[in-house]
Amino acid sequence: MPQQTLYDTITEIAKRRGFYWPSFDIYGGMSGFVTYGDLGTKLKRNIEAAWKDFFVRKQGFLEIDDPLINPERVFRASGHLDNFKEYTAQCTKCGKGFRADHLIQDKTGLENVEAMGGDAIKRLMVEHRIRCPECGGELKEPTLILTMFKTEIGATGGETGYLRPETAQAMFMNFRWGFSHAREKLPFALAQTGKVARNEISPRQGMLRVREFTIMELELFFDPQSPGCPWLRHVENSVIRLYTEKMEAEGVKEPLIITIGDAVKQGLILTEWQGYFMGVGQAFMDVLGVPPEKQRFRAHLPEERAHYSAQTFDHEVKLETWGWTEISGCAYRTDFDLSNHMKASGLDMTVLREDGTRFVPHVVEPSYGLDRLTYVALEASYERRDKEKRNIFHLDRRLAPYQVAVFPLVTRDGLPEKAQQVRDLLLRRGFWVIYDEGGSIGRRYARADEVGVPLVVAVDYDTRDRDTLTIRDRDTWRQVSLTVAELPGVLESYFKGDKEFEDLGVPVVKE
Amino acid sequence: MPQQTLYDTITEIAKRRGFYWPSFDIYGGMSGFVTYGDLGTKLKRNIEAAWKDFFVRKQGFLEIDDPLINPERVFRASGHLDNFKEYTAQCTKCGKGFRADHLIQDKTGLENVEAMGGDAIKRLMVEHRIRCPECGGELKEPTLILTMFKTEIGATGGETGYLRPETAQAMFMNFRWGFSHAREKLPFALAQTGKVARNEISPRQGMLRVREFTIMELELFFDPQSPGCPWLRHVENSVIRLYTEKMEAEGVKEPLIITIGDAVKQGLILTEWQGYFMGVGQAFMDVLGVPPEKQRFRAHLPEERAHYSAQTFDHEVKLETWGWTEISGCAYRTDFDLSNHMKASGLDMTVLREDGTRFVPHVVEPSYGLDRLTYVALEASYERRDKEKRNIFHLDRRLAPYQVAVFPLVTRDGLPEKAQQVRDLLLRRGFWVIYDEGGSIGRRYARADEVGVPLVVAVDYDTRDRDTLTIRDRDTWRQVSLTVAELPGVLESYFKGDKEFEDLGVPVVKE
Repeated sequence: MPQQTLYDTITEIAKRRGFYWPSFDIYGGMSGFVTYGDLGTKLKRNIEAAWKDFFVRKQGFLEIDDPLINPERVFRASGHLDNFKEYTAQCTKCGKGFRADHLIQDKTGLENVEAMGGDAIKRLMVEHRIRCPECGGELKEPTLILTMFKTEIGATGGETGYLRPETAQAMFMNFRWGFSHAREKLPFALAQTGKVARNEISPRQGMLRVREFTIMELELFFDPQSPGCPWLRHVENSVIRLYTEKMEAEGVKEPLIITIGDAVKQGLILTEWQGYFMGVGQAFMDVLGVPPEKQRFRAHLPEERAHYSAQTFDHEVKLETWGWTEISGCAYRTDFDLSNHMKASGLDMTVLREDGTRFVPHVVEPSYGLDRLTYVALEASYERRDKEKRNIFHLDRRLAPYQVAVFPLVTRDGLPEKAQQVRDLLLRRGFWVIYDEGGSIGRRYARADEVGVPLVVAVDYDTRDRDTLTIRDRDTWRQVSLTVAELPGVLESYFKGDKEFEDLGVPVVKE
Repeated sequence: MPQQTLYDTITEIAKRRGFYWPSFDIYGGMSGFVTYGDLGTKLKRNIEAAWKDFFVRKQGFLEIDDPLINPERVFRASGHLDNFKEYTAQCTKCGKGFRADHLIQDKTGLENVEAMGGDAIKRLMVEHRIRCPECGGELKEPTLILTMFKTEIGATGGETGYLRPETAQAMFMNFRWGFSHAREKLPFALAQTGKVARNEISPRQGMLRVREFTIMELELFFDPQSPGCPWLRHVENSVIRLYTEKMEAEGVKEPLIITIGDAVKQGLILTEWQGYFMGVGQAFMDVLGVPPEKQRFRAHLPEERAHYSAQTFDHEVKLETWGWTEISGCAYRTDFDLSNHMKASGLDMTVLREDGTRFVPHVVEPSYGLDRLTYVALEASYERRDKEKRNIFHLDRRLAPYQVAVFPLVTRDGLPEKAQQVRDLLLRRGFWVIYDEGGSIGRRYARADEVGVPLVVAVDYDTRDRDTLTIRDRDTWRQVSLTVAELPGVLESYFKGDKEFEDLGVPVVKE
């Protein structure tokens, strides 16, 4: 029997407890789509809120929310209609299509075959005599296939439209609004979180490659002659693990360990804004439970970069099963997009400098995939305590789907009624609360740990008789005692981050 | 010159200040799509959060988040493939298509023509000699056209898919997961907020009829033999304005003013769950600024009801320009959907009663359109103070896009630096803050009113010298004074609803 991987374990718990599972399972499923249950919906929402806290709220950046369906003109202007394609090999026997680079990688163990280009891909398919992985049939020569979802807008003789494969075009199309709203001053940024769809040829890897997913990204517009980031000092001493383009080209295995400030000074990171967002991103990933040692930034080689990019760093985290995995890209898009939209729309998107010269603003874009991060948050926070046979997700208190669980010790003597009063008190104060009276208290603690609830409030005879209760910490299993009246204020302090668990009450010493 | 309507006024402010505007405007636009700017994105998010607070968090209902793209099998089972259609008349000259019922309504002033059915629609088109509204050409006889967006899943020879026109099917397809997660007990509910898309034939009315929008809905599953709602008592004394099916059929003009409890007791509302959600919905709309007197619940006539419904009430609010406007439907879907999916999937979706009998659960569904509510929140909270030439949005403190603005009185003598310290203090405490030092303080107050910021903190010489500042209330323009150290705690109490404006400090008496 093959070894169960950590990915398998997480996937099994995710399905059993209702974080997420493959979509349309009652109709035989459809690869590339995922359904989030109660816990997953809440975890995903909390990660999104944390991202906005790190990338939008504190900087005062502007948000935007644009449609998923876009008319074809948009993607003609953006270059996607020409470029958003993958080499696809179709089977002459069963008719199914497969990504040629993936087939080559599976057969040969080579990495990043996509970056080698079409000629190499065609050659490698022949050299390695690659056949259909489903039926063994002969494959046609790979051709470039557009991987956007196509539709018709207007039910009768309308216009062709596509589902957007990224959210960035909205920020470019609405640049003029943003610039005016920012009182015609650079730098400013437009941020968006929203659904995108990519018609992947043959999606695999479950949560790591889905056809419909949520992107969180922002476009920072700046003057290339005044490229300074006023907040760089907040992150310049952060140490990152960096692979430069040169290191990548030379196949260097060990990363350069360097501060962001130095990497910018030495020109390894082209702009201060990239450096800033890489630093913010590293701190954000820490909230998801990924320490800096398990993060790295890897420059794209020229042939690997998207059509719009002058320099891109993949932000990668180390997953146990999948190894180093991209969770974000930080791209220096230059003036590529605004220039294209300017040409296509005929509208002026230039900005006037004080010296009277005009220029098209440059753009730096950090971009995160929310679905993948949801998996990362689970894997990074997972602990198995074998002795106690417990699964624990040590999710940050900002991310936990439910903040607190309320348990009556037993289901008699008025304890459930008292516990329900406590639950209602917390609901009135705005907390996300689980109430659970089913099974032994030990089993209920185990269930709470397995869904990452940071605090459990236990209601016992002391609560009924003396209005005191205990709170138990998910991570240490320690307990403190306090009065019912103190509870809401204490929990508010804890979830605001003003207090640690030990400060919430009087330690309970176990006999 | 035609009179400017309130809708025009709101639309103009919305565009100018960046709440929302028509999408793809740099490429000539595309009707039926809307782009939200910074303020609109935030307002919409806050309305969604309020909805979850009213409909999900307090009841402990389960959330779910399913894909927008669904394979065809799903909509075959749900009945949408046969039923999600509109009578469409295509022009023989210009080729454009139009909704026949809308054309008839425009020409004749008749209401709700859709409900009259296909024969009546075809007859009325001929009787009133209706021609193409664009080119005057002759129209073909109306035919039923599917109004879901179609696409192909899988870029090479995949499966047909559609964008979902409602989110409800996800809750039905995942009923078995929900039931198991609810420990195999009824009643329970699955709630979802998410994007849907309807390929409207000829969308009009701007924000009130868009092709891509966000729905907030939940499916409450219950045993028709135990139809009680444990929370009905929370709303049973709420007075609603009701039009029953009988009143509608008889054309009664004045609503029945009745408590929800009585309407349920008298059988006018078929189930306690509908009554409960109608009560919650009325309270929710109060947060948006719509008092009960401007709300009503109107039963659908049998021919107007969707294919799955035994009784539906439209929840309508009175808008100045558009009159009574549907913002929600509360439908009793019976066992229609689960039975269909059971048949199509071959999976058992019945539930066992204690007496050993099996049954398919019944469903009550309240469903809200978030985009329309965003407009409603603006119109309902709008005030024009002609004397002062001010626009004010009196948005509830839970909905306001920004919670607080910080203004230095003047841009010299160290006041901007002091004001930035205050801003940073509030940002660290998690508030959404606008900082503004441009123009006279009066102009800045006017700008803040026009985007609905509840509180403005003014930093003046007293702040620099004595660490005191003033807060100004958007609604009354009154001011109170307090110390910088008190500010964060005071604002937290205000936004939690624990304190009113008058309690935030010492009243400032204007000389």
